[in-house]
Amino acid sequence: MSLQECDTIVSASNAILDGYTDTDVAIAIRDGLIADLGKKGDVIAKWQSKNELDLGRALLMPGLINAHTHVPMTFLRGFADDLPLMDWLTKHIFPVEAHLTNRIVALGARLGMYEMMRGGTTGFVDSYLLEANVLEEADKMGMRCVAGEAVFAFPSPAYPNWEAAADLYRAQAEKYRNHSRIKLCMMPHSVYTTSDDILRQSMELAQELDIMYHIHLSESAGEVAQSKELHQGMRPVEYAKSLGLLTNRSIFAHMVDLTDQELDWVAESGAQIVHNPVSNLKLASGIAPVADMVSKRISVAIGTDGAASNNSLDMFESMKLAAILAKGAMKDATVIPAEMAFKMATQEGARAMMKPDVGVLKIGAPADMIALDLNEPNVVPLYNEISHAVYASNAKDCILTMVEGKVLYQNGTYADGLYAETVAEMQDLVQWARSKANSL
Amino acid sequence: MSLQECDTIVSASNAILDGYTDTDVAIAIRDGLIADLGKKGDVIAKWQSKNELDLGRALLMPGLINAHTHVPMTFLRGFADDLPLMDWLTKHIFPVEAHLTNRIVALGARLGMYEMMRGGTTGFVDSYLLEANVLEEADKMGMRCVAGEAVFAFPSPAYPNWEAAADLYRAQAEKYRNHSRIKLCMMPHSVYTTSDDILRQSMELAQELDIMYHIHLSESAGEVAQSKELHQGMRPVEYAKSLGLLTNRSIFAHMVDLTDQELDWVAESGAQIVHNPVSNLKLASGIAPVADMVSKRISVAIGTDGAASNNSLDMFESMKLAAILAKGAMKDATVIPAEMAFKMATQEGARAMMKPDVGVLKIGAPADMIALDLNEPNVVPLYNEISHAVYASNAKDCILTMVEGKVLYQNGTYADGLYAETVAEMQDLVQWARSKANSL
Repeated sequence: MSLQECDTIVSASNAILDGYTDTDVAIAIRDGLIADLGKKGDVIAKWQSKNELDLGRALLMPGLINAHTHVPMTFLRGFADDLPLMDWLTKHIFPVEAHLTNRIVALGARLGMYEMMRGGTTGFVDSYLLEANVLEEADKMGMRCVAGEAVFAFPSPAYPNWEAAADLYRAQAEKYRNHSRIKLCMMPHSVYTTSDDILRQSMELAQELDIMYHIHLSESAGEVAQSKELHQGMRPVEYAKSLGLLTNRSIFAHMVDLTDQELDWVAESGAQIVHNPVSNLKLASGIAPVADMVSKRISVAIGTDGAASNNSLDMFESMKLAAILAKGAMKDATVIPAEMAFKMATQEGARAMMKPDVGVLKIGAPADMIALDLNEPNVVPLYNEISHAVYASNAKDCILTMVEGKVLYQNGTYADGLYAETVAEMQDLVQWARSKANSL
Repeated sequence: MSLQECDTIVSASNAILDGYTDTDVAIAIRDGLIADLGKKGDVIAKWQSKNELDLGRALLMPGLINAHTHVPMTFLRGFADDLPLMDWLTKHIFPVEAHLTNRIVALGARLGMYEMMRGGTTGFVDSYLLEANVLEEADKMGMRCVAGEAVFAFPSPAYPNWEAAADLYRAQAEKYRNHSRIKLCMMPHSVYTTSDDILRQSMELAQELDIMYHIHLSESAGEVAQSKELHQGMRPVEYAKSLGLLTNRSIFAHMVDLTDQELDWVAESGAQIVHNPVSNLKLASGIAPVADMVSKRISVAIGTDGAASNNSLDMFESMKLAAILAKGAMKDATVIPAEMAFKMATQEGARAMMKPDVGVLKIGAPADMIALDLNEPNVVPLYNEISHAVYASNAKDCILTMVEGKVLYQNGTYADGLYAETVAEMQDLVQWARSKANSL
């Protein structure tokens, strides 16, 4: 039998594959896709490759997907903590954001992507101001990214009004139409920062462009109170439902303050939820009823939210917290077992990206994968790979991050060679940001 | 002015010192103590040292103190997850523990200490079966350790009855009386696994030996229900109070299920609490009322609990979770600010060790300190050192761990040279542990 050719063969002592784990595994990659996988001996016997990466004692697994973040906000990491939400936003975050530039957004996005690839995240769903910069940097840096300009009812640096925002969306959707890694997502910020018309029209545009519709919803008790006051007693989910926003292309971020009826509506609609446990705790929004969501068969993905309210973009941390917080809140150790938290951080994240093949290592899927170092003390001994990935691993155990078969990060080195200058330029922003906050 | 001699000078770009932060700092160490600290130029001008460690862009800070753990249990890391507490204990953990040997306990302790020193923890408070092995390994490995044999009313591998356990405590207290890093601690397991007599007599012995008295208390609703049934309607804290266990040498681990009255009693007694947020969530015990504890001026330290119920010994994770979980539970973003969480993981931990000087970098204190790599993306940019230590850092950002001025871990290398063989021997235990559980 003659050998088939592939680009790379990655092998390791352990792997989490499509619903099962295996030892002594190799994965053959061709044209960015997984061409074959199996026992190392079998794969080597069938494939000839230009590059061989033998990782030794390591755990190969799908890259984690950060299904809700604002990646440029790394530039405000640790800028203001431990404050009530409205003080935090109006006295600290907004005054600095009022001076945003394309360069700052690009720089924040670059830093956040370095942090994510360093920590085993291969894809992310993002919205912020001047988001074109995030799309461009993700394209250059090789990460998988689904993103859209944050849509508000008031002017933003990227558009004066909804019509201009819609034009921006159409142009960007066209620009990235055939891109395998980058995709648009409709990103109305929230029901409380938009309007009936914008919410409806943005849903129509999402349908026209065939993209997901991703919105912050029912994040806090304050949002619920405001909604009831402004919208004839309707809570945010009911209000969103009245506007036709509960669809199977809808993704609701946070969803902390909910009634059982609201969860039933979401379940019936086929909409998805993104759970952001770290941010919900740090901003004191509360604890989302994730066990209830799952028992109603709602798809739940996991996000870190932005670094200004987390303060990291660590999906391993958020995956573990998603699993344990639900147990503590429900006083039931059996809810959100490790396998489910793992699925939320991988396959359910892939659904949020409209890229269902990503999130599982299987033949034909894009080679978006990572490897964890199994020589570190926190993952010894090894009884169960998924338990270790969820409960014992640390983002920094990641030694290899690959998207579409291309190495983005390996053993301390970022492939694009621009890490040091990005860090230096970002550090220089500290004085600038402080001066903008102090100028209030 | 002639130069004074010291053993080591450690310098770095940033440091968290005694209640303040500074840049461009050097610390001079002599005979295991901090002999001087200040701006690098000033320290270098005064001290001549045999070793110089210039860490560059790094954050020097006191080592974290894990104030409640069962470090040998690393050998059961990931062995059984997502189970109700009683199933987990009786069907999985106890059947394996029934076959414990000195070698397994020593090996588990070694692995746990590697994990802790790798992750920036310099000291820990421990109890388990055959604990003499933990004391001995901590002595050899250079970590700071306060520990005691777990005391039960039933025979354990280390003693047949309380009288023998008391003799063991007296002998070990004598053995380590003048040790600067190792100290005994009275460790009755819980009110539900001991007896009135043992609880009272162990407190008397703690007073006789002048050691802390550390016990699991009010960990879960189940424990409270059982206490009320067995002890004339008294909840665990009231029962402990009736036996004279609420003293200023008492340390209560977990303390999840509490009334306001119970917290007042604890506050009046001067007893300390150790909060174990990860384990409390994972075992579904619930959320301890830490904000209430702090507002009543109770000293609260932080622990990871054992690796079988966490599943890591990561104090950075537990410190962050202590800060954010209290906010989410109270719906108040201002409770347990970063500075307080940091103090809980350092100075309050030092109190739990009866070693108040540890936990702050100041002249005269033992040089128990660590350094975090500030070149990692998750700690860029740097606005506030304490915010980054609590909210943004990762245990694996630790590049240097030092106890009493001796380097235990630096940049991937464990000083004692036995890491690889410990890992290999531990991994070999997997089949053995599985066979013991399956033999049920």
